[in-house]
Amino acid sequence: MNIALAQLNYHIGNFEYNTNKIIEHIKLAKAKGADLIVFAELAICGYPPRDFLEFDEFIDLCEDAANQIAGHCIGIACILGLPVKNKVLAGKDLYNAAYFIEDGVVKSVIKKALLPNYDVFDEYRYFEPAREFECIDFMGVKIAVTICEDLWNINNNPLYVSSPMEELIKQQPKLMINIAASPFSYLHDEERVLVLSDNAKQYALPLLYVNQVGAQTEIIFDGGSLAFDNKGNLIDEMPYFKEAFRIYKFDGNIIEGYEPISHQAVPDVEQIYEGLVLGIKDYFVKSGFSKAVLGLSGGIDSALVCALACRALGPENVMAVLMPSKYSSDHSIQDALDLVNNIGCMHEIIPIGDAADAFDRMLAPAFEGLPFNLAEENIQARCRGVVVMAMSNKFGYILLNTSNKSECAVGYGTLYGDMCGAIGVIGDVYKTQVYQLSQYINKDGIVIPENSIVKPPSAELRPGQKDSDSLPDYDTLDKILFQYIELKQSSSAIIAQGYDEGLVRRIIKMVNNAEFKRYQTPPILRVSPKAFGMGRRMPLVGKYLS
Amino acid sequence: MNIALAQLNYHIGNFEYNTNKIIEHIKLAKAKGADLIVFAELAICGYPPRDFLEFDEFIDLCEDAANQIAGHCIGIACILGLPVKNKVLAGKDLYNAAYFIEDGVVKSVIKKALLPNYDVFDEYRYFEPAREFECIDFMGVKIAVTICEDLWNINNNPLYVSSPMEELIKQQPKLMINIAASPFSYLHDEERVLVLSDNAKQYALPLLYVNQVGAQTEIIFDGGSLAFDNKGNLIDEMPYFKEAFRIYKFDGNIIEGYEPISHQAVPDVEQIYEGLVLGIKDYFVKSGFSKAVLGLSGGIDSALVCALACRALGPENVMAVLMPSKYSSDHSIQDALDLVNNIGCMHEIIPIGDAADAFDRMLAPAFEGLPFNLAEENIQARCRGVVVMAMSNKFGYILLNTSNKSECAVGYGTLYGDMCGAIGVIGDVYKTQVYQLSQYINKDGIVIPENSIVKPPSAELRPGQKDSDSLPDYDTLDKILFQYIELKQSSSAIIAQGYDEGLVRRIIKMVNNAEFKRYQTPPILRVSPKAFGMGRRMPLVGKYLS
Repeated sequence: MNIALAQLNYHIGNFEYNTNKIIEHIKLAKAKGADLIVFAELAICGYPPRDFLEFDEFIDLCEDAANQIAGHCIGIACILGLPVKNKVLAGKDLYNAAYFIEDGVVKSVIKKALLPNYDVFDEYRYFEPAREFECIDFMGVKIAVTICEDLWNINNNPLYVSSPMEELIKQQPKLMINIAASPFSYLHDEERVLVLSDNAKQYALPLLYVNQVGAQTEIIFDGGSLAFDNKGNLIDEMPYFKEAFRIYKFDGNIIEGYEPISHQAVPDVEQIYEGLVLGIKDYFVKSGFSKAVLGLSGGIDSALVCALACRALGPENVMAVLMPSKYSSDHSIQDALDLVNNIGCMHEIIPIGDAADAFDRMLAPAFEGLPFNLAEENIQARCRGVVVMAMSNKFGYILLNTSNKSECAVGYGTLYGDMCGAIGVIGDVYKTQVYQLSQYINKDGIVIPENSIVKPPSAELRPGQKDSDSLPDYDTLDKILFQYIELKQSSSAIIAQGYDEGLVRRIIKMVNNAEFKRYQTPPILRVSPKAFGMGRRMPLVGKYLS
Repeated sequence: MNIALAQLNYHIGNFEYNTNKIIEHIKLAKAKGADLIVFAELAICGYPPRDFLEFDEFIDLCEDAANQIAGHCIGIACILGLPVKNKVLAGKDLYNAAYFIEDGVVKSVIKKALLPNYDVFDEYRYFEPAREFECIDFMGVKIAVTICEDLWNINNNPLYVSSPMEELIKQQPKLMINIAASPFSYLHDEERVLVLSDNAKQYALPLLYVNQVGAQTEIIFDGGSLAFDNKGNLIDEMPYFKEAFRIYKFDGNIIEGYEPISHQAVPDVEQIYEGLVLGIKDYFVKSGFSKAVLGLSGGIDSALVCALACRALGPENVMAVLMPSKYSSDHSIQDALDLVNNIGCMHEIIPIGDAADAFDRMLAPAFEGLPFNLAEENIQARCRGVVVMAMSNKFGYILLNTSNKSECAVGYGTLYGDMCGAIGVIGDVYKTQVYQLSQYINKDGIVIPENSIVKPPSAELRPGQKDSDSLPDYDTLDKILFQYIELKQSSSAIIAQGYDEGLVRRIIKMVNNAEFKRYQTPPILRVSPKAFGMGRRMPLVGKYLS
């Protein structure tokens, strides 16, 4: 039999768009001689639909779309992810499921058993886990179909107490198919290949795996659908960060015509770059906007975001606003203009002095006798926020936030100032990775001015200010932050690695005390295994290491 | 035996504070002749500890605190909620549990089976559900101890496929004890009494129920611990919104000395008032601040928030900032000053004209030839945001957000302008409820000026602006919003109730399109069954009814 895998970019809740795309690929697969086409987890509604799932009308629309699609499954069968109602009056109202459709009819319903409920995942919020398992029967072959997490229970301390494959294997399937919505992180592709390989090996079955691709606000799906032989060898790998479609010939025992290959390991920096570009592009396409605005300071963070946005949207759709103040260094404007010239985006220069001075005058009676401090620094950052938001409101540009992960972590940013924006482009990219990405972008010629890369980082909110006045060097800071945030190491464990005790405690305290700021930041494109936002949920008034 | 219930206000992650409070109440109970004292769910660390639970160090600190407390349980036993490690190498790493401590030793560990994972709850993110159940044995009596949700599975369509009491009852207990962290909503107290009563009746056992009290950022626990006889009659009800402590004499069959009573139904408006006052107070106490600042417009929303803050913090700790613009009506300043005079809080008058004019001049080249529109309206709101945040930064005042639920819902507010703040005081209070609360506050004499209550609502961002220019009357709007937000009704179901189809579709579209704004709003004190924030999780770029 010929099995097509459709690695597609869906749009949450856009039933017309998703349904048309699915039907188009059914027609394509049929024209190319496929007997079965496989779509990803929750393909009909996109992933994650979140609390839309709590509306009956939304579930009905999923079912309507499935019925429409079923009508096209004549002469070709289809496996299609969607939420389905739990008809038993006990347990949650829904299953995360897939329809196996043949001859225009739903022949069986595959239900997901292992419901991820960590990091960005909330599946047990909506879905009842499956407790009964049955292989599908197609062209005389038994196929064990599972949904994403169902295969992620292979290790010495599994997260779930049972595994669907342990039941399905008893029915002697000849092939495994897994449909997924498995988000990108720059550490996830290797893990995914390993886990799926372990499954193919353990059950001695070939395995076809289809993933979603595309970004849904902060979550980026990277595609990279996979095929394995029954020894666990990777035999095919579909492209990352774009839609793809392939047909495999399965003879009832093996997938024909493929040899073992190695996973194409791509450097982290390149993966992050591709992920961020896709993340920006899909945020705009899916929210119906085309033009972006950002504040361009001459520093490396905003330069990088500008370069990423120009790549994602085209430089003609990016407006860079230069907003110097009396504390801006001489070279800042020039560095920003150099970038604009290198890259060809639109720009405006709007000095903020008049507004900052007006606030100083307005507040003078209330602030009488009190020295310049953080309050005045923040006024400048907030004046810039007002200017870029005014540009956004006047022209319909979407404001890109340029805060990096290191500063988000320690709270080194002004709420309602430089923390404004509709989407945080590099909020999951540590400062040291910001440098790596900038060098990567410059690999074939200078885009980001050398001076933006080499000068000491500064917020330029008071004379001579440097990030290093209040923060350790970013190499050290980022390593400690990675231990605490990504690896969830306790302070004592981090100190035991040889870092200065006082420094570790001070940094963790800064991270915890900045929770109230991060609560109000824009959604952040997720590229690491632990991004700020929906995947990291901390108490605000809690008193722990704070 | 004498059983003490301790209804206490914990602080998340503040182990020293929680442990001292628990030990103090053990001593008190012992002095008063109690044989057993019962504390709430996760009493040791406070509820909800959220992702703190993912740090080993945090769990170790819980265990350390429990050991310290156990040392005080000599001559008195104790039931104490805490997270405990799952020692089996399968399933999640933790249980939501309780220690039964007797003679200074942990005699048994009660584990929660039913893990709420809806609305504000994320328990399956952290905890493995219990699958085995055993009554505790104390002074020769078997007691069925359960944790909160464990008793919430009594109806015709239960959320969980099994119930711990169905197992525990087989062991013939004589008493049920349930320890809880059950959040307040103005509709929840009646439901709680009913569900617990149904349990007492169904299992024909007396039931003692102890809840937490106090606010943890947005979640407010209202206390109201309860006692039932074995026919399901309510026989005692502890106070709401404050700490309380009572001792019950249980003779092995009945709780002695009590007769059936009715649940003390308190009007919604009074419950909301008490909840909000506690919410403000605990936000400040638990984050270590004492003074608040807010923008006072002369309108009813900020007047109400000011009155609530003065009640919670004392008027001497509240700074009201009046920020008139050229579009402010003549009476606005007077209405605001009347409130300040009535209530005795601090105030400053800081007109925003200079800053707004400065922005207009700065943006004139970029905006040349374009008419006044939303961009200029938002500049004014954002100038006010800059001013109140400057006051906050300079004096360490915490900014209270004054947006009501109706405007949060439809996106009628300026991001980084009037949507600024550390905590949203009335973001879960519809405009019609804002009026009710204001009347309630004025019941014994005018606090909120009559004019703020009776004048037509206006944002005053352009000449002659009224809320009714772009919104339906609040009576209609709030009813439609309640159907959509609290009751999750689909548009067709709401229209079927007789509301205008175009209006319903327009309002739902406004709600869905404002999701990106709500993503960046402050945490909102939750008083309804469905507040904006962590309990309502919607996609941002999703395209559904938008």
